[in-house]
Amino acid sequence: MKDLTTGKPLLMPADLKLVEGVLARQPRALAKAITLAESTRPDHQARAGAVLDKLLPSTGKSIRLGISGAPGAGKSTFIEALGVHLIGLGKRVAVLAVDPSSAISGGSILGDKTRMERLCQEKDAFIRPSPSHGSLGGVAEKTREAMLICEAAGYDVVLIETVGVGQSETTVAGMSDMFVLVQLPNAGDDLQAIKKGIIELADIIVVNKADIDPKAAAIARGQISGALGLLRSASPHWRPPVMEASAATNKGIDAFWAEVEKYARVMAETGEFQARRRRQAVDWMWAMIDGGLRARFRQHPRVRRDLDPVVAAVAGGEQSPSAAAYQLLGYLDAPTPTPASAQMRAAETAM
Amino acid sequence: MKDLTTGKPLLMPADLKLVEGVLARQPRALAKAITLAESTRPDHQARAGAVLDKLLPSTGKSIRLGISGAPGAGKSTFIEALGVHLIGLGKRVAVLAVDPSSAISGGSILGDKTRMERLCQEKDAFIRPSPSHGSLGGVAEKTREAMLICEAAGYDVVLIETVGVGQSETTVAGMSDMFVLVQLPNAGDDLQAIKKGIIELADIIVVNKADIDPKAAAIARGQISGALGLLRSASPHWRPPVMEASAATNKGIDAFWAEVEKYARVMAETGEFQARRRRQAVDWMWAMIDGGLRARFRQHPRVRRDLDPVVAAVAGGEQSPSAAAYQLLGYLDAPTPTPASAQMRAAETAM
Repeated sequence: MKDLTTGKPLLMPADLKLVEGVLARQPRALAKAITLAESTRPDHQARAGAVLDKLLPSTGKSIRLGISGAPGAGKSTFIEALGVHLIGLGKRVAVLAVDPSSAISGGSILGDKTRMERLCQEKDAFIRPSPSHGSLGGVAEKTREAMLICEAAGYDVVLIETVGVGQSETTVAGMSDMFVLVQLPNAGDDLQAIKKGIIELADIIVVNKADIDPKAAAIARGQISGALGLLRSASPHWRPPVMEASAATNKGIDAFWAEVEKYARVMAETGEFQARRRRQAVDWMWAMIDGGLRARFRQHPRVRRDLDPVVAAVAGGEQSPSAAAYQLLGYLDAPTPTPASAQMRAAETAM
Repeated sequence: MKDLTTGKPLLMPADLKLVEGVLARQPRALAKAITLAESTRPDHQARAGAVLDKLLPSTGKSIRLGISGAPGAGKSTFIEALGVHLIGLGKRVAVLAVDPSSAISGGSILGDKTRMERLCQEKDAFIRPSPSHGSLGGVAEKTREAMLICEAAGYDVVLIETVGVGQSETTVAGMSDMFVLVQLPNAGDDLQAIKKGIIELADIIVVNKADIDPKAAAIARGQISGALGLLRSASPHWRPPVMEASAATNKGIDAFWAEVEKYARVMAETGEFQARRRRQAVDWMWAMIDGGLRARFRQHPRVRRDLDPVVAAVAGGEQSPSAAAYQLLGYLDAPTPTPASAQMRAAETAM
């Protein structure tokens, strides 16, 4: 069903109830709305779009933290300790995940809820594993929508966990207000995050498990600070701090959150907070448009037929990239029945 | 004119002569072919495409060096010293430039040929300024085509100079076999290349003007090496060396070239050389396709009408990015006259 004047899908009565349930902070409605958004069925997608549009005015009021780190860095225990701390401060906390590897492994970070035993028992916490199917783009899109639904349901903090697989950090940084990198204290020879260019995304860096080897943690902290000094700061008003923490003993969790609040305050005062969200939203729209344009392009019958041989010819140096692009794009302009020719055929039929 | 079986444009007799002239290494034919490729006139573009296709089997035999560095780093003197050195080794050298800023300033790097006085006088050197109009993508595309034409004209080395404007380094790295970063010896507090992430593109780094302050040059070299040690190597078989040189006194030019030849050898032996060229060609094709798809999208009448307000609504949080993308992409599927409706109209006309 579409609104005849705006062309937008109309809300079905059941979905209007869903919207009301989310806004009334009912856990079941929240889970159901996210499940609807995660569905790949086209009719579900249309309904989810209408639900999201209705929720949109109630979104945007949380602080969105992206949290990344290598496997074993202790992201989950850190998120749990942070979540419990925030609930102690009277905040409602949602935990989401972007894990493109779950499509391959079948598993999913946050899938094993027992890993966050304490947080699971809190009524003000909502934990949702990563959607387990689709490309990184698809998984990220659904997580972004889940984030908006959580905001509409009144969560004050949304924590988005991701693992270091491919582009997932960049994707999560692109949907969060602040990107947190959790590092192990064994730096030095394998600062993978620096080597992979992830550290440049970080607005704050946590050397976790600092209690195990305080000396190593201090060295790691110094090395990371040194490396950060050489890199560009994303903001002229914020130099990413490097902090030590121990999720197991709760050490440094309160200092970490104080730093997050300071960041949010500085960014809000300078206007960067809203500017970053605006840019993220517009970037997101263009990424979806580009993806849609590529998908349409690939679905064109002549492109489907010729793309593989053309790519092979370009890779083999037999065809220039511009000639190949010219040829494939030309298919989109291939003649469709013109009114004139259709008219001729119609005239023939009429005779 | 198009070939009726392949759909490719046919060569006109004058352009066939142009192809023969380029292959015969005639300087005038070379300059004329590049001018044709640089033209924005659609008929010239079609002819240039046909000429390029004909030259393609004779391309790919040069080594392509991208050369970047901040203004004042001495790129031009370095290129001239290198060019004269190479000609001394019996090589033919082409120098091109990618300078997107020339579209604004009206000037162009390499435009002032007197900057390379010695090299200009060499019959085995060909120097061509940056195309002075168009976007970075357009300038880069034309430079890439000029590079192929130079290869067909038997140049052994193609040097592509660029300045640090926006994405131009990434673009030039994307069309060269080896990316050279020229740095000044005053490192330390302003390692701009590191801060801007350009150093990650470099396959070799030259601390130029090392004769002016040898101590500062040694310090800069150490700092850059240290920073590189923290960054990811693009190739598992090559760790980018940091070298000192002085173009003014020719110091280090021969050592630099020896390093380039070593790089080319290692990359060829491991298969990375060809793999990089294949990847570059396919990436280039996709960039052109994506650009073409975006251009077509923007030209759609309803997109032209609604894009600005929709972007504003997304930036303002009034419309979700996915709903916006869905809406705008939907315009592409807007009903065009179907055979049935055309038939009806035709029937009406016939009545």
